[in-house]
Amino acid sequence: MFFQLKKNVSDANKLLETNQLVTLTWGNVSEIDKDLNVIGIKPSGIPYSQLKPEHIVIVNLDGQIIDGDLNPSSDLETHLYLYNKFPTIKGITHTHSSYATSFAQSGISIPPLGTTHADHFYGSIPITRKLSDNEILYNYERNTGRVIYEIFSDLNIMPQDIPGVLVNQHGPFTWGKSALDSLENAIALEEVAKMTFNAKLLSNNFEAINQTLLDKHFLRKNGARATY
Amino acid sequence: MFFQLKKNVSDANKLLETNQLVTLTWGNVSEIDKDLNVIGIKPSGIPYSQLKPEHIVIVNLDGQIIDGDLNPSSDLETHLYLYNKFPTIKGITHTHSSYATSFAQSGISIPPLGTTHADHFYGSIPITRKLSDNEILYNYERNTGRVIYEIFSDLNIMPQDIPGVLVNQHGPFTWGKSALDSLENAIALEEVAKMTFNAKLLSNNFEAINQTLLDKHFLRKNGARATY
Amino acid sequence: MFFQLKKNVSDANKLLETNQLVTLTWGNVSEIDKDLNVIGIKPSGIPYSQLKPEHIVIVNLDGQIIDGDLNPSSDLETHLYLYNKFPTIKGITHTHSSYATSFAQSGISIPPLGTTHADHFYGSIPITRKLSDNEILYNYERNTGRVIYEIFSDLNIMPQDIPGVLVNQHGPFTWGKSALDSLENAIALEEVAKMTFNAKLLSNNFEAINQTLLDKHFLRKNGARATY
Amino acid sequence: MFFQLKKNVSDANKLLETNQLVTLTWGNVSEIDKDLNVIGIKPSGIPYSQLKPEHIVIVNLDGQIIDGDLNPSSDLETHLYLYNKFPTIKGITHTHSSYATSFAQSGISIPPLGTTHADHFYGSIPITRKLSDNEILYNYERNTGRVIYEIFSDLNIMPQDIPGVLVNQHGPFTWGKSALDSLENAIALEEVAKMTFNAKLLSNNFEAINQTLLDKHFLRKNGARATY
Repeated sequence: MFFQLKKNVSDANKLLETNQLVTLTWGNVSEIDKDLNVIGIKPSGIPYSQLKPEHIVIVNLDGQIIDGDLNPSSDLETHLYLYNKFPTIKGITHTHSSYATSFAQSGISIPPLGTTHADHFYGSIPITRKLSDNEILYNYERNTGRVIYEIFSDLNIMPQDIPGVLVNQHGPFTWGKSALDSLENAIALEEVAKMTFNAKLLSNNFEAINQTLLDKHFLRKNGARATY
Repeated sequence: MFFQLKKNVSDANKLLETNQLVTLTWGNVSEIDKDLNVIGIKPSGIPYSQLKPEHIVIVNLDGQIIDGDLNPSSDLETHLYLYNKFPTIKGITHTHSSYATSFAQSGISIPPLGTTHADHFYGSIPITRKLSDNEILYNYERNTGRVIYEIFSDLNIMPQDIPGVLVNQHGPFTWGKSALDSLENAIALEEVAKMTFNAKLLSNNFEAINQTLLDKHFLRKNGARATY
Repeated sequence: MFFQLKKNVSDANKLLETNQLVTLTWGNVSEIDKDLNVIGIKPSGIPYSQLKPEHIVIVNLDGQIIDGDLNPSSDLETHLYLYNKFPTIKGITHTHSSYATSFAQSGISIPPLGTTHADHFYGSIPITRKLSDNEILYNYERNTGRVIYEIFSDLNIMPQDIPGVLVNQHGPFTWGKSALDSLENAIALEEVAKMTFNAKLLSNNFEAINQTLLDKHFLRKNGARATY
Repeated sequence: MFFQLKKNVSDANKLLETNQLVTLTWGNVSEIDKDLNVIGIKPSGIPYSQLKPEHIVIVNLDGQIIDGDLNPSSDLETHLYLYNKFPTIKGITHTHSSYATSFAQSGISIPPLGTTHADHFYGSIPITRKLSDNEILYNYERNTGRVIYEIFSDLNIMPQDIPGVLVNQHGPFTWGKSALDSLENAIALEEVAKMTFNAKLLSNNFEAINQTLLDKHFLRKNGARATY
């Protein structure tokens, strides 16, 4: 059962490694089936190269295991929280990719310096606040989702407009219309982070692109009036 | 029909990925056939690994599709503008390669710091001005070609002398005597950008090479008196 | 004889290259068999791609060769010293991996800036003092072990809490519950070093994570109450 | 004829690409046969992946072609000059590898910051002066050899002690006891350049290792009293 969902999730997780987004087992991808109200997610601790569709863990929206012999990724509660609060998204990718995580560890957001950024993210990629001691001690993974939701609420950002975030002192989460789409946003985020890192070192005078260029690039690829 | 042109363009586009110049589908190569007055260009959205000669879109100099079932790259109008204004060039490559794009996003040109640069580019690789809001809103891709032509006119540079440019807040375009030659210039530009980036971080005292060394390296490989 | 030990050590040494932790032959992994009181270690000068279990050198705790036709790695005495002083460890990896060695050459420790660090290292990865001239001239490799032990004693760190160190002007050593575990810590150390390097360049305001987050991440993966 | 020499040179040139030391065709390796007084060198313009022993060009010490249908590398005169002035060397590698060339373009030498450096280079890797206009205009390649020899004479360095150099505004040359040995020194130089680059960015307080540590590492691997 759930064969297509398991295959989508397995394929996207294996692409984490192919695209050099993960070291050891530091990353996971999930996808939600909106008809069946179940989520497929990577099991904990399995190397990507050995991962097969039958390893994917199927859980319901409360996180109870419906199908699968392995433990789900320890980040499951973060995924569940985001699927609940961001009903338009259908896939989530979490990595510790080098450049995006470097920004997360520096506590700074990634401004849109060029059209590469604008093709995927409709503005700065935000950074969450740090979690409080209590938020770390109790329901840590769920609270990781909470600070993500909080920054999107505070800044009044729609999750489909900026499909990614940096969790302070932790790393990036991205999402999208499917497991694969969230993975492609993780690839884009890492590359954008690398180029913004380089631009910051090259010059202190760089500036974000203006709204017109941001509109041009983001809206032709995304949203209601997308032309491709 | 157009088999050789399609093969040249397909091969060069596939080399974008082999040479790590592209992420996802962020890049395209075209070639012009001066006898038939047609251009072959990558279709939009096809992964490089799946690209075959029969996918290449053939258009005339007005951009009308002559042959092919797929949509041409969204950057087609930029290619057409450059083939029109730079009649000596026969191939064009556009990428968002990491270091060249980092310079483009910082708004600074790439000075010739060594013989690696001089073997391919006869002086600084220029950066265009930013496009105005109107230029972004109307005929954006064509205006991207226009600001490239403008900087070469303003600085009185022949396109065969410096076969590449950085479009401000966007990324690099390179060209050459064929699709493959433009691709090799894209490879050279990315590597030159990386080494100039490093040199800028190492020291504030670096300086551009002088005209004699620039002549020695560029002219022995390029131009009328090239010895190899 | 010693087939499993030799296989463990051979496999882990080959993974040095697969994981891009070594250039030429600059790295070695060993493992101790606590029942037989013998250590398996990489022979000197063999390329990783040609290494086989039968090449692994077996020595006793005094460093005398028990089995094997080749010379052990010149770093053997450092390994022996560490197995003697840190009785809880069972595998050791030494590399000259790029970013970790860059920190070693700069003489600075690696602070815990994020959860990636905390998943593997329960605090800053320390840097040893430089060796004195006498320590270099006589029993150099053994004294390399000595300055490692010294910094762990001085800072009152348990080796299982921070399974790695930077030897000043030299490079990293990591350890773990097996050859493979020490190798995984070497992979984690290199990636953590890269991200800390980037964070330092991005901002002067970065700060180490607090004890609560360090506890959360380290203790759920390591120690008596580990949940996975 | 010259089969072993051709094979040695072909193999070492192919390793340039395998070890990511070259972009396009920017690099070449040669070896001298001291009995026959001939040199084998890479032909100009052949991709490394297609190179075979029969492509290697054999020249005498005056640079006259003895065997081979192709043109020798344009850097031949530099190789000849070095074999003439440095009679102890038997192989030469020239690359434009990224980090070493970045130092060459910055005009600064590479100080010995750690044992990785000391295992291969017995002190700072020197940088030549820039060539004068006349030296560029006439006998450029030979004069490139001349400024290398000049800096070794001026600093009183034996070529076997520091088997590499940075040519100002150009890139690195390394040498050794064979084509393969010169290639391994090129690999070591690039990695040492990368780590020194990183260390310079991490801290302004780094310092070169002292003579005792330099002696310990260099002399145990090289010279009359080498122990391995």
